[in-house]
Parts: sequence; C-alpha cells; structure tokens
Amino acid sequence: MIEVDYRFPPGVDAQKQAKVIAVGQTAGTWDARFAHREAVLSEHLGKVIGVETQTNTGYSIATVRFPETNVENDISSLLTMIFGKYSMAGAAKVVAVRLPRSYGLSPKFGISGIREKLGVFNRPLVMAIFKPALGLSAADHAGILKEVAYAGLDIIKDDEILGDLDTAPTLQRLKACRQVIDQVKQETGRTVLYAVNVTGNADKLIEKARLLVREGANALLLNVLSYGFSVLQALAADADVNVPIFTHPALAGALCAAPDHGMAYSVILGTFMAHGGADAVLYPAHYGSLPFDAVEEAKIKDSLRERNVFPVPSAGIHPGIVPKAIADYGNDVILNAGTGIMDHPSGAASGVKAFFEALARVEKKESFELQSLPDGALKLAVEKWGSDS
Amino acid sequence: MIEVDYRFPPGVDAQKQAKVIAVGQTAGTWDARFAHREAVLSEHLGKVIGVETQTNTGYSIATVRFPETNVENDISSLLTMIFGKYSMAGAAKVVAVRLPRSYGLSPKFGISGIREKLGVFNRPLVMAIFKPALGLSAADHAGILKEVAYAGLDIIKDDEILGDLDTAPTLQRLKACRQVIDQVKQETGRTVLYAVNVTGNADKLIEKARLLVREGANALLLNVLSYGFSVLQALAADADVNVPIFTHPALAGALCAAPDHGMAYSVILGTFMAHGGADAVLYPAHYGSLPFDAVEEAKIKDSLRERNVFPVPSAGIHPGIVPKAIADYGNDVILNAGTGIMDHPSGAASGVKAFFEALARVEKKESFELQSLPDGALKLAVEKWGSDS
Repeated sequence: MIEVDYRFPPGVDAQKQAKVIAVGQTAGTWDARFAHREAVLSEHLGKVIGVETQTNTGYSIATVRFPETNVENDISSLLTMIFGKYSMAGAAKVVAVRLPRSYGLSPKFGISGIREKLGVFNRPLVMAIFKPALGLSAADHAGILKEVAYAGLDIIKDDEILGDLDTAPTLQRLKACRQVIDQVKQETGRTVLYAVNVTGNADKLIEKARLLVREGANALLLNVLSYGFSVLQALAADADVNVPIFTHPALAGALCAAPDHGMAYSVILGTFMAHGGADAVLYPAHYGSLPFDAVEEAKIKDSLRERNVFPVPSAGIHPGIVPKAIADYGNDVILNAGTGIMDHPSGAASGVKAFFEALARVEKKESFELQSLPDGALKLAVEKWGSDS
Repeated sequence: MIEVDYRFPPGVDAQKQAKVIAVGQTAGTWDARFAHREAVLSEHLGKVIGVETQTNTGYSIATVRFPETNVENDISSLLTMIFGKYSMAGAAKVVAVRLPRSYGLSPKFGISGIREKLGVFNRPLVMAIFKPALGLSAADHAGILKEVAYAGLDIIKDDEILGDLDTAPTLQRLKACRQVIDQVKQETGRTVLYAVNVTGNADKLIEKARLLVREGANALLLNVLSYGFSVLQALAADADVNVPIFTHPALAGALCAAPDHGMAYSVILGTFMAHGGADAVLYPAHYGSLPFDAVEEAKIKDSLRERNVFPVPSAGIHPGIVPKAIADYGNDVILNAGTGIMDHPSGAASGVKAFFEALARVEKKESFELQSLPDGALKLAVEKWGSDS
C-alpha cells in the first residue's frame, strides 16, 4: 500500500479535496454501463484514511491510500498518480509519501558499497567539485584532480552545469582523469572516485553511461530532476552501469521550495531518490549557503540511510563546518565541498588537507576557535570561511 | 543567445540576484590560477541585460542572457543551467525563456502533419479520453473506441494515469483498438488516431514506443514531466517513432502553480514542449475545470503554434464550451474532452455528436441558448453541463 500526505492551507476543504484525489487520481467515476466491471474498478480506487486540521495554523493534512496495482513500481508513474493532474487543481503540497520497502529500486552500492570501493570504513568521506564549472579543458580537470587526489581526497565530481561540451567533452574528461586515478592507485594504493556528469537525450544518455563505464568511469553523476526519474531508474537497473550513481538536486527548488505547492524536499530528495536507485544523494545542508530547513534535511538523511543510500549534504560546505556536520551525521556522510576546497587560500590540495585536519580535531574533541588552531591548512580555511562548532 | 526572465517578489535585491544567476549558474568565479584560461572562461559567463521593478507591485523582472555553448541544444541541460541550483536559493520564478528558433527540436508532424494524417483541414479536431481511467480491459477499450469512432471522433487517448497494468497491458489495448481503427478506415475511409500512453523506465519506455509503433500505434501519449524532457526528446528524435507525440501536463502544477517559485506554465507547457519535439500539447483551458490563467493559456497557444504544434486545451471541456473555444482559438485547436464525451446522458457516441453539432452551430453563428437548441445530443449536453457562449 502507498500512502501520501497532502497538506492544504487554511480555507481549503481538505476532506473534500482528499476525496477528489482518491477518486480523480485513480479510477475516476463510472456509470451503470460499467456495472459489470464494478469489482475491478473498485480495486483501483484510492481511499481517504485520515484528515486532520491543526487548530493553531488552520493547515490540514489529508492521508490518501493508493493501490500499488495502479503504478509500475517506479517513481514516474507514482508521480502521475499521486500528483499528476491534481498538482494543477489549487494549493496543496505533498509532504510525505510512504512506500512499501520493495517499491522501486535499492542502490547497487550505497553506503556499504561505496566504502568497499574506497576501502574507507570508519570516517566521513571527503568530496570535491571541479571549479570553475565551465570553460576548463580536459587537461585542466586532470591537473586539478592530481592536486586533490594526492592530498587524500576520496571523491570528486563534475559541476552539475558541465555537460558534454566542446571545451571538455565528457569522454575526454574521463580519459584524462582516469590516468590520474590509475596513477594514484598505483603509487598510494588509494582509490579515488570521479562522478562523471552524464547528459543528453534519454537514449543517448543511457548509451553514454554504458560507454563511460566501459572506458573506466568508476562513478556517475545525474541531474535527476532535469532528466527524469525514469532515467535514474534506467541507469540504476542497468547491469552494465555497475558503478555508484550520485544524484544532484538541480531544479529541486522548482518542485519543492514553495510553501503551499509542489512536493516536500524530503519526498523528492529523500523518499524518491532512495526508491529510485541512487547510491549517494546530494542536497543542501541547512548550515550551508542555501536556505534549507533542518527538519527536512533530517528527514532526507533518514530516508536515504534506511535504504543504505549515502547522504551528501552540500552547498557552502567548508572545513569549519565539519564539527557541526559530524554532530548531525556521525560518520556515514559524504562532506561535499566546491569552493570550500577549490578556493582554499593555499590551493585545492590544502582545501582537502584542511578537511582531514578538521576530521582529526573533531575525533580528538579539540576546539575550532581560531586562536587554538595550529598554523596550517585548517587555520587558513577557518580564517577565510569561519567555523561553526 | 538564450534569454531568461526571472521574477522576484518585493524585498529581493533583483540586481544582486541576477548577477548571482549570471555567474553562479554558468562558469562561476575563478582566481589567478586560471588566468591563462580567462578568455575561454569568460565566454561561458551569463550576463544581466536588464532589471526592472514595477512600482505598483514591488515585483522585479531581471533578464539574464546565457551563452548557447553552455548547453546541449536540449531542454534538460537548459533546465539545469537556468534554474538548477538557483531554484533552491529563495523566492524567484522563471516567467519567460526566449530560445533561438533552431534550439531543440521541431515537431515531426505538428498541426499540418496531424491534419494530413486525418485528412481534416478546415475545422477543429475532436478528441476523447478513455474513461474510467483504470480497471477496464483491453476489450472494454475497443468497445468504447468503436462507439466514439463511428460517431466521427478524430482522436482518442488513454487517461494519463493508465500505465502498462495487468488489467489492460499497453500492447493488448493497442491491438484491440487497432482492429477498430482498421475497421473504421475500411468502412468509412476515416482515420482515427489513438494516442497510447507510453510508460516505464527510460530505456524500456523508448523500446516500448518503438514496439508500439511497429505494432500499429498511430500516436503516442507521454507524461513529459513525470518521465523527463530527455525522454520526450529521445522519442521525438527517434526515426522509428514516426507518429505524432501528444504530451500531457501531469505534474505541471508542482513546477508552475506557486506564485513566487518554480516556472511559469507558459514556459514549461509552451516554450519547452514546443522546443522539445511535441506534436500536440495538452494543458488546462482557463474556462475548464482547473484554475488556469487566460493570459498564460494564450502564451502557451502562441508558443506552440509558432512551431506548428497543436494546442490541446483540456480539463472540463464539454460541448457547451465550443463557442468560447472557437472564439479563442479559431480552427487550429484540438478540443479534448474526457467526461464531456464519455458521460454524455445518451452515451459516448452522443458525446461526440454533440461536439459536431456544436461546431456546426458555431459555423452558422447560431445561439447556444437552451430553448433555441433542437432536440438531440447537443441539447442534452447543454442541459447537463451548461454552455458558455
């Protein structure tokens, strides 16, 4: 059974709207001509199982239960059923979706699989983003990767903006970076993952993902909301795409940021990514550079971890934030920094080192007050970006 | 050049936010280390070309120009660039996107191609939707189609909710209905299009579309926003999918209904569908059963027609609305009715006949006042649903 919570603002007849959803988003109405099909038709109907109005705010939450037989065990048909036409009917926000455990996909790798690949089991992972986002050559990418990889970085990803562009075609970026990854492995024994951004029309995107993996890609990045959950699921279910899929939240605000319309961030970036087959999911951290609600963030984290999916709080992450992040997340988190690594005053390698210094200090419960920090990468980072301990 | 208008509510520093977009959604910032790439990096930057604040409302519109080289001539990478991360940054709505004529795809068929297929050139087309939406067998679908097709219907489509379900698998529905279509063709010479809903993970969906076309599907239906623009473009660019693609607006409200977040309906259902390769685009009519703005509707219509895409105003369309629809649209429109045909008091065939009676009355400039209507299908329809002339 699938249960969906819809939140209505004051003044909406939630009981009535819930019925409109339960019927209108499923079998609809029928007349005497279909009396002979009554039994089957009825099986497809949704059911209102509760409506509550908060006396202080006037907001109502209505819960509708949908038959699983109406959908195809995927996120796309689920979206059409629970909010397809009804999304255009007036103010209403989907604030929670409860799916059976078996619904959709589970990650091929997830937290345990990514840790296995890296051989890192007892600390948060550190991830960087190539910057500037557009205009670098494939060789520039390799040069940056070399700096950060030797400094101890676990994972790097393309900027989500960077598609398959003439200045640095995707396959060329991969080939240039793959050499660095092989060299680091040979010299240090360490694995570094590079999540390559896959783009294009759905058919070409899927072909490109397979090609990239054949050519040595050890992770992929997908802008799920720009390309479609159906594309995520295609990649996640593809036996040839046997590398972790990192998902980016680009466009999530268009679906989730409005107070009384759309769907909650925790539904899109939590529940749906987790059941869509993502291995690691990026989303804004509430102490980062984007406005984000701590409660929604916690819900995303819980939905992901429940299915062994790696949470990747992002946007405005820098070394001074590490104590806060560890307090919130513990070890099973990927700390993902763009400018927080690339714009370190002493360069990107120092950015990575600053994160590891920060992790060591947290472990030893040492202060992040500027005057208590020894000279080095972390101190320079905290001087530039502050700390939040 | 790509130009995007962002609308900000009162209190937002639109000038500042426009700069954040122009830089943050493109190359980003860089430091001295990349001075040698300055020329290339600069080519990728966006540019603020205008900011205007309305004195009466306090709302601002900022226009940002983006280089076409940043994107892949498709809608998905465009979404990431113009509103990917920034959608999560605060209140802002994308209210217009201006694309070069050559951007994206054009319809394979569109208005002229669909008319050609039907052999109907000088009147609006009449379209129905199978109802009830879920729970009918393939044979039930064929039975319904027979009724409406012989009554003169031009096009029928699946309900958008109906996927590839056990009660009526997609291929079985097609095969059962294809027999009716062939029979009608043989006996009357008329072509009836059946837009079959294609669903599934992206790879399976594309394969299924090809299979359906091989098996005789003469049109397809896609829930573009549930499955992704990358899937629409894959189908539209596929030489084997040589039938018109009808697109459904399911989920559009999640992206478009909020006043100060997301994107305008006219951008998603107009500009992007038209440049994404759709042949006919469904969207709510402002005089239908969903709340919809007449100005947005007119913009959608214009964006579609400019690229030879058929506008399909939908939701709550019934015969009594025909005079209003023709006044707004003229002949190049598809009148799409669900219950407005299927729930006609004398049955679905009478629902179709009522539409043709209505078209004839409009042509002869005859009144739709109940007392002036002769006995028959139209009168019964107007008695049930009223008229709006």
